[in-house]
Amino acid sequence: MEDQEPGQAELPSMGDVLAAAERIGGHAIRTPVITSSTLDAMFGARLFFKCENFQKAGAFKFRGACNAVFSLSEDDARRGVATHSSGNHGAALALAARLRGIPCRVVMPRNAPDVKKAAVSGYGANIDFCAPTLAAREEMLEDVVARTNVAVVHPYDDSRVIAGQGTVALELIDDVPNLDLVLTPIGGGGLTAGVALAVKSRSPGTGMVAVEPEGADDACRSFRTGERLPSVSPKTIADGLLTSVGVRNFALIQRWVDDIVTVDDPAIIRAMRLVWERMKILVEPSAAVPLAALVQNRIDVRGRRVGMVLSGGNVDLDRLPW
Amino acid sequence: MEDQEPGQAELPSMGDVLAAAERIGGHAIRTPVITSSTLDAMFGARLFFKCENFQKAGAFKFRGACNAVFSLSEDDARRGVATHSSGNHGAALALAARLRGIPCRVVMPRNAPDVKKAAVSGYGANIDFCAPTLAAREEMLEDVVARTNVAVVHPYDDSRVIAGQGTVALELIDDVPNLDLVLTPIGGGGLTAGVALAVKSRSPGTGMVAVEPEGADDACRSFRTGERLPSVSPKTIADGLLTSVGVRNFALIQRWVDDIVTVDDPAIIRAMRLVWERMKILVEPSAAVPLAALVQNRIDVRGRRVGMVLSGGNVDLDRLPW
Repeated sequence: MEDQEPGQAELPSMGDVLAAAERIGGHAIRTPVITSSTLDAMFGARLFFKCENFQKAGAFKFRGACNAVFSLSEDDARRGVATHSSGNHGAALALAARLRGIPCRVVMPRNAPDVKKAAVSGYGANIDFCAPTLAAREEMLEDVVARTNVAVVHPYDDSRVIAGQGTVALELIDDVPNLDLVLTPIGGGGLTAGVALAVKSRSPGTGMVAVEPEGADDACRSFRTGERLPSVSPKTIADGLLTSVGVRNFALIQRWVDDIVTVDDPAIIRAMRLVWERMKILVEPSAAVPLAALVQNRIDVRGRRVGMVLSGGNVDLDRLPW
Repeated sequence: MEDQEPGQAELPSMGDVLAAAERIGGHAIRTPVITSSTLDAMFGARLFFKCENFQKAGAFKFRGACNAVFSLSEDDARRGVATHSSGNHGAALALAARLRGIPCRVVMPRNAPDVKKAAVSGYGANIDFCAPTLAAREEMLEDVVARTNVAVVHPYDDSRVIAGQGTVALELIDDVPNLDLVLTPIGGGGLTAGVALAVKSRSPGTGMVAVEPEGADDACRSFRTGERLPSVSPKTIADGLLTSVGVRNFALIQRWVDDIVTVDDPAIIRAMRLVWERMKILVEPSAAVPLAALVQNRIDVRGRRVGMVLSGGNVDLDRLPW
């Protein structure tokens, strides 16, 4: 997928986020915001969890994929969409395509977990299997595009996808006024860029901090140096956050994000278990990353109203991290 | 605890359920009703899950305990409350007592799981440990009562407790009109008796069926024979449903419940996993028992609107049944 620096015009605006909200309104779930008096007492703050684990296909990814699919012209849509993904984006795009009634192809590594393959094919997409390397995935996707002339929807470095993810923040701010701080996990930066854009447009006084696993800290290093640095052999339990921050994503993050902090895997596992045990909801490791920053005392939240995005709930129940 | 047949006057009425709703209103959570289009499609029905796994102390038990504690006169309350419990009722009573600011003693078997002991003592109750037999528990409780003159709150065979559990159905019926059927898991019968009373009073056309594990089928056998038969060496993964149906509970069940069906443990585990994976919420095995009746095709729900009580979410994450 392309990697050139975007022009100003290619970055999504708040208008694009509002248009996305309109476009996906009939399809995406307006997820609930949940609170927990136990966790509030534990951290001395008021915490508001935006539950994208309850979103269609189990993660916020459906918003961006849905916005991209329903942004296509009739002509483009007819030819279908494609992406490469070993995770939530593939299933999200497959479902969005099914809702519009158009073909979808997902390039997946041959060794992807069966449950992920089942989700993608369950939503009616065609899977093209490839070797488990990024190069093989990109080559296979190029080949698919050359053969079928489908529209590629990148998992995060795509303005329509970023605008779609921003709708998470629109709903959160509507439901919870006067937030002091909003926290997101960060991997490729689709969620963080969209949420930061919407938060700072709608509620400029609200702080915006992204939280990243120590073992995949390219976004943090890029943010500190001002230069987009790639992930090198990332390793973390938060398997949704292994990717490097995208070009468009980084441009928006530099403009709108106040800080990026890192957490270690034991804190992520502890935070994940806290959510499961205290809130009785399933979240995947990546979704517990913002709360891990509180567990590790990396962000001062005492007495503050803090919104946190629980990004997804797709977890293999046979392989829990404790 | 006493075991004599109750007089008519000792059974709770719909008025008691309404009074309980008033009494516990400021304390109990009005839990959400959740739906799942995936599960609806799977079973060809409209399913409405009343999420008592989100209740305070993690189970519906808090409603009954809270109603009992706040029903006490000032004089009785001052002396405190006591019960024996190895499960959710002990924690629920401890929390209710703390909210009223009165002492609470819970008799627990020495071998109860640490997590249960921690919950009870975490809410500030005193634990009296005893040998792990029903006889030892009852003897110890009698001893506690003799020494301290506290009020005993039975886990289910108590009109105040039954009326409290009935508030689950009030909320469900308020939120979801025109239910064809309501399903509850059944153990001691506190939930089933209270819900049946409220359902048949508020919505006489709605069917009311209790679902019981095959390995602890005393309620089903009692219902069929018309005679209250005890549980004999019950064995099931649904550890909240091992107890025998109470006297008051059985009287109400005979009057208001349309049927009791049984399910096996594999179906319970399958149903529990369906709820976790598809709805992204934690429920304990007992809570999955009604859905297990659909998994095993024991109840015809096709085309019907079915309310189901997810009774609790207290599960040991280190000992999952799959």
